Order: sequence, then structure tokens, then C-alpha cells
Amino acid sequence: LAGFVLAGAKSTRLAMESFDEARMRRAIETKRDGAALHASDWEAMIPAYLSARIGDDQMAAMLMAAVWRGLTLDESAALTKAMVESGETIAFPPGTFVVDKHSSGGVSDIVSLVAVPLVAACGARVAKLSGRALGHTGGTIDKLETISGVRTALSRDEFVAQVERVGCAIAAQSDRIVPADKRLYALRDRTGTVPCVGLIVASIVSKKIAGGAHAFVFDVKCGRGAFLRDSEAACSLARELVAVAGRFGRPARALVTDMDEPLGHAVGTGIEVIEARDFLRGPARDERVRALALRVAGEMLSLAGIASPEAAASRALDSGAAYDKLVEMIEAQGGSREALEAMTHPLNAARATAPRDGYVTEIDATGLGNLARTLSEREPTAGIVTAVRAGDRVERGSLLATAYGSAAAAAPLAAAFTVGDQKPEPRPLVYDAIA
Amino acid sequence: LAGFVLAGAKSTRLAMESFDEARMRRAIETKRDGAALHASDWEAMIPAYLSARIGDDQMAAMLMAAVWRGLTLDESAALTKAMVESGETIAFPPGTFVVDKHSSGGVSDIVSLVAVPLVAACGARVAKLSGRALGHTGGTIDKLETISGVRTALSRDEFVAQVERVGCAIAAQSDRIVPADKRLYALRDRTGTVPCVGLIVASIVSKKIAGGAHAFVFDVKCGRGAFLRDSEAACSLARELVAVAGRFGRPARALVTDMDEPLGHAVGTGIEVIEARDFLRGPARDERVRALALRVAGEMLSLAGIASPEAAASRALDSGAAYDKLVEMIEAQGGSREALEAMTHPLNAARATAPRDGYVTEIDATGLGNLARTLSEREPTAGIVTAVRAGDRVERGSLLATAYGSAAAAAPLAAAFTVGDQKPEPRPLVYDAIA
Repeated sequence: LAGFVLAGAKSTRLAMESFDEARMRRAIETKRDGAALHASDWEAMIPAYLSARIGDDQMAAMLMAAVWRGLTLDESAALTKAMVESGETIAFPPGTFVVDKHSSGGVSDIVSLVAVPLVAACGARVAKLSGRALGHTGGTIDKLETISGVRTALSRDEFVAQVERVGCAIAAQSDRIVPADKRLYALRDRTGTVPCVGLIVASIVSKKIAGGAHAFVFDVKCGRGAFLRDSEAACSLARELVAVAGRFGRPARALVTDMDEPLGHAVGTGIEVIEARDFLRGPARDERVRALALRVAGEMLSLAGIASPEAAASRALDSGAAYDKLVEMIEAQGGSREALEAMTHPLNAARATAPRDGYVTEIDATGLGNLARTLSEREPTAGIVTAVRAGDRVERGSLLATAYGSAAAAAPLAAAFTVGDQKPEPRPLVYDAIA
Repeated sequence: LAGFVLAGAKSTRLAMESFDEARMRRAIETKRDGAALHASDWEAMIPAYLSARIGDDQMAAMLMAAVWRGLTLDESAALTKAMVESGETIAFPPGTFVVDKHSSGGVSDIVSLVAVPLVAACGARVAKLSGRALGHTGGTIDKLETISGVRTALSRDEFVAQVERVGCAIAAQSDRIVPADKRLYALRDRTGTVPCVGLIVASIVSKKIAGGAHAFVFDVKCGRGAFLRDSEAACSLARELVAVAGRFGRPARALVTDMDEPLGHAVGTGIEVIEARDFLRGPARDERVRALALRVAGEMLSLAGIASPEAAASRALDSGAAYDKLVEMIEAQGGSREALEAMTHPLNAARATAPRDGYVTEIDATGLGNLARTLSEREPTAGIVTAVRAGDRVERGSLLATAYGSAAAAAPLAAAFTVGDQKPEPRPLVYDAIA
């Protein structure tokens, strides 16, 4: 494209006051040609888009140019600001310091269900606005709503009051919070413009800022079951999340963690609530879930100024205080201990067994996530429970996993497991941490 | 962007039978990730777009991805085919071999007005569908319509019959020829996606193919007064124009020619008709216009199988046969010799003179084109006549140019000329020729 410039095309700073089709075209050309837009361009573009002064076609071209050229940190921060200002924001009373955590999306990712009450049980306040399932990954709101009676559509006042009173709340993000994200995400999904670090950062951070918390922990999943397969891309996203949050005066930390196989053993919605419940209640606790939940909770507590954060979290877990806090949160949102404790898998099930002796070399988390979504759409506590992890030694006929809720799921369930001769290299649980 | 791939995104060949939003998204992702689409994808995409099964937003993202990644020759040819098939086409009777020429757009570019009758005067048939002015460059249709009585909106039958009877016709492209181009060009203009060789090639060649001629000469302008400033980009466009035309079995040649300063001396609409008339009528003829007109006409005649083409063209010019053919064509389209010969500049005028002794180092063809457009919108024969070329020695007070039609145009007229101490390097008129 070198030298391939339209005569007369110029890059100019665009004034906020009249962001129309002609100015948008110049902004697209600027980004297309590899230059950064001024912060005021992004801040004017978003309201112009939402008020239909510029159309989906121009925004789609801009988004593809952003995928191509990337956004500078200044641009991501400006876009984030414009997105926050597109809707309502939540504010906590002065003196209340509130933390939040965000996962970029995983399979069997029960960290939010575990860490939120755990951190609150240690005396910090957690206010989590959460989303629905995206693609093959689970959504915390979908999971919570499988508990009979639980409401996630809290008003702003209810949400703030519950955080003050109980110490934590997990609520669905209302349509009035960052409406620009809903519009932009739908457009990005249609136009192949999802994979751009700067756009992803703005989407995530804008919702966190609007949610009112003062500090954030970002859990960026990486691997074949995540939206980012490559650890370099995940680390780059993690760094930018922390940097952009910092531009808003919100301290943040990010962990880049493994999602090459499911985090826990349960994959689904209600079935993951059961796993989180049993994990918090103990006494038996999966080591991998424990390690990540304590690490995430520790970072949240550290941001909240709690001393010896991982030790405090470990005590709250082992004492049962974290489980009691989960129950308290569920009760505050309309559920009950009885409803939570009555949850159980459906009885009809399909089993996958090892076709040969060997090692589990790969577990297709994306495949399991898609299968579990199909199952749990029929019955809330249907889903998958894995019996092995990558690297485990198995014999022909050993149980690999059980799919609850359908006797017909054996073949797709088995297809998610690969058994081979070579024991795979162990992978770290946490690839990188950014503070 | 390396490794930054959405889990589950795959590049697949898309079937023609159901080109919907989901398939378009996959096609966008394929192009975004740098792969070529299958010919059938382009052939299905265009009718899907025209019938609104896919929207402007998806097409805009695809176009930006095409600007980013480029199109292969196969892709350009497939897009060209789909665009041709979007509308009507013109066919000449068997045995009639017809040539056409196209300019990528210039200032004071009177080659079409000169070469079309010149080639017809040599016994070849020329069928030219032409466009309106684009940006600062002139459009042959706008120029022809300044001749009193001339019609350019010929029906297909009128156009074909005139080419048979007179030997040449220049008509406006109807909306029924390549309607896809009109839609796509408007979208490209809005979304900063004009500069892509493959898209430009498809836009140009589709209209030429639909116009029915059997062989083409492309005059690709290059320099500060052209849409392509860089000779490498212009040569790349020239090569692809010839290659894609070849895919349709139409022999073609391309010249890459200078547009760093205006080609002739007149800039405007009617004022360029006056220059073309006086050039064809003679006896005085500008050397630069003569060189390019004979070269273009020679290539057209060579494609039509005429022996010693440049000598034939030179004879037809000097004998007055070419001028007679121009008059015959104008009469066939409703005008008259009297109307043509009565055309003259307006009397009111502004003059620009050299501010100092020195050499004319630069003539801003884009600036002159824009100024001339403003002038000729008020009065058809208003416009600019330059008195110098780049490289000419001038003294303080020497005439640089005259703007006819406004006494107030002196300042912008003078601004288009730069006088300096150094005599600029002479530039070639023809940079490259592709056969």
C-alpha cells in the first residue's frame, strides 16, 4: 500500500462539535493509514454512532482498520471513557472501597462463584456486574440463575446496598450500563472485528469502570479453551487492561492463566454451581481450582489493603466462612440455603471411557463447553463432570467423563478426549502476573 | 496480531447457494486473516449484497479487509465477473471489432476527446462509455455536454448503431450498467476503502466489459494531480487491469503516464472541449498532448489490427480527418459543427503572473482542477488556461495562467504555481507500458 494515497486525503484532528459522515471518513482514513486518532475523535465518535449521525457501515470500516492497525493506549483509554459515558454508572458511598474481578471467559471457570464470597468473608467488599455466556464459555449470571429463587437483575440501589450490608453481590449488567458496548459488540460479532486488543480492552474496562468498583483483578484465560489461544496475545491484553484501568485511577492487576483444559471438573451452568458449592463447603477441594481461586482472591484482597491476603483467604476457605458468605449472598438475592444444597445432577447420564491404555494428552475444552451448553439448555443442572486431567495415566475402559442429562451424549463426550502414548508436558496454571 | 485468533474461527469455502450473514462473517474473517476467498464467494457475495441479504456494515468490513490484505488476481477477476453480471451488458454484432480506452482520471486530460475520433478516422471502431467528473479530475461526459445540443444518454441500440455507422460514440454509462459499482463505490467513498488495487481494477474493468468493447487501452495517470501519486502503485494497477481484462478474453494494454502537472493547457469542461477542438483542427498542436494522444491512439489501433498504427494516426490528425470525425460524432449525438466552432471562453478573466524570476518548479494540478470545477459550474466554458509548463524559465511579471469566468480567481490561481531557482528535472510523459 506504500505510496498508495488518495490525492487530497489528509489526517487532521477532528473537532468534537460536528462529528459527521465526512469527519468519520477522515478518521477512518487516518486509522487505515496507521496513525493514531486523537482522544477527542473517539470521544466524539461514540455518541455520534449511538445517535445515528454516523452509520454501522462507517463504524464497521473503522473497527476493521482498528483490527489492522491496533489502538494506542491513549486511543483505548479514550474509547473506554466514551463508552463509560454512553450510559449509567454506579457509585458507592464515600469511604467504601470496593473490588471486582473479571474473567476473559473460560470453561469450568468457577473462580467468580468461589472468590467473590471468599474475598467478602475476609472483610473486603466485592461488587461484581457480570455477563451471560459467550460462545462455548460459561457466564456467571447464567450459573447463578439456576439456583431457585435467585435474582440477578438488581437495581443500582439494591446492588450498592447489598455490597454494603453483605459484603458482596453478583448482578447482571443492565442495558443502561455501557449501551455503546452492546451496539459495538453486536457489530464486531457480525463483521469479524472482535480480535483487537484495544477494542477488547475498551469493552471490558468500560463495564468495570461503570460498575463502580475501585480496583480490579483481570483473569485473562489463555489456551485452546479460551478466546485467546496464544500466551503472548493474552499477556498483551493483560498489560493493556491494567494500563487502561490505571488511566481511570483504578489500581488493577492481571493474571494470565491456563485454559488449555477446563479449570475444574464440572462444565455447564447449575452443575458448576454444584462444584463451587462443594468446593467452598469442603472438606475435599480440587487443587487446581484452589490454587487459582486463592491466587485471584489474594490479589483482590491485596488491592483492598488486607494484610497477608493469601493466608487470610486460605483461612476463610478452610473455616467455612467463605461458604457461609456464599449462602448469605444467595439469600440476599432471593435464594435459600435449602435450594442451593438441594441442587443435584440429573440421573440419566452418558459415560466416556478410555479407548486404550495411555496418557490423556488433550481435553478439548471448547468442545466440552459447546456440549455442556446444549445439555444445560434442556435442564439447568445437566452438564459434564470430567474424571481426568491432561497428563493423567489411564487404562482402556477407565472413566474419562460423565455427561449428565442425556444418555445420548457419549460420542461427542468421548471425542473431546485424546489418549496417546506420550505423557504431555505439564503446563503452568499462571503464565504471567501484571501489577 | 500473530496468534490472536478466535477459538473456533475457521476459513472455509463458502457455498454459493446460501450466502447469508453468517457466511459473510466467515468470509470477512478469512480475508482479515490474510487468505484469499474462493471465486464463488465473490460471485455469491455481490448478488447477496445487492439483494440486502448482507448489509453495508459487513460489506464495509470486507472492503477494509481488502484494502489491508489486497485481492489476488483470481479474486479481482471473480469480483469483476460478479459486478458485470449485476446489470445489463452491451453486445456488438458479430464481426464488429470494437476498442475502448479508459483514463484513471486526470486534469486537462483531453485524450479521450482527441483519440476517440482519431482512431475512428483510421477505420477502427470505438465505443466509449464514460463517467462524470470525480473529485478534482474532469469527466468526459461533463465536457461533451457543454456542446450545445449534444446528448450523451444514448440507448443501447443508439450506441451500437452509432458505432457501426459513424465509427465512434461516447455515451454516459447508464444506471443499468454494473449497478453493483454504484453501490460499492458510494460505500467505499464513505468508508475510506477506495485505495485498493483489486477493488479499483474490478470497478474499472467491470464497466469496460459491460460496455461491450473487445479490447482496451488503460491510461493510468500517476503524480500529484492523479489519484495515484506513486509510480509503483500506478504500475501495479496497470498490470492488474491488463491481467484481469485478459481473464475475460479481452486483449488490453496499459500506459502509466505523467499527471504531475496538467496534461494540456486548458482545465475545465467546455474549455477543454475548445482545446481538443483546436488541437484536432490544427495547425498548431501542443507537443505533449500530441505525443500522448498518438501513443494512446496507436495502442488502440494496434489492438484493432491496423498496420503502422502511429503513422496512420499521425496522418489522420494532420489531414483533418480526425477533426471531421469529431464533428461527425457530435452531429450524430445531436450537436452541430456550428455549435462546436462557436464555443469560446468568457471574457471576464483573472491572470496570475510570476512573482519573481526563476523556473516554474511545480504546477498544482489538483488545485487547478478544483478551481476549474468551481468556475465551470457557473459557466460551461469558464476555466483555466495555463501559459507555462513545469521547467519553463519565467521573469517577474510573466503570465503563468488565465482563469476565465471570474475576475476574482487571481489568488487561488497564483497559488497553484511555484517559482524557484532550480530548474526541475524533466519527467517522462510515459513511465511504463504494459501489453
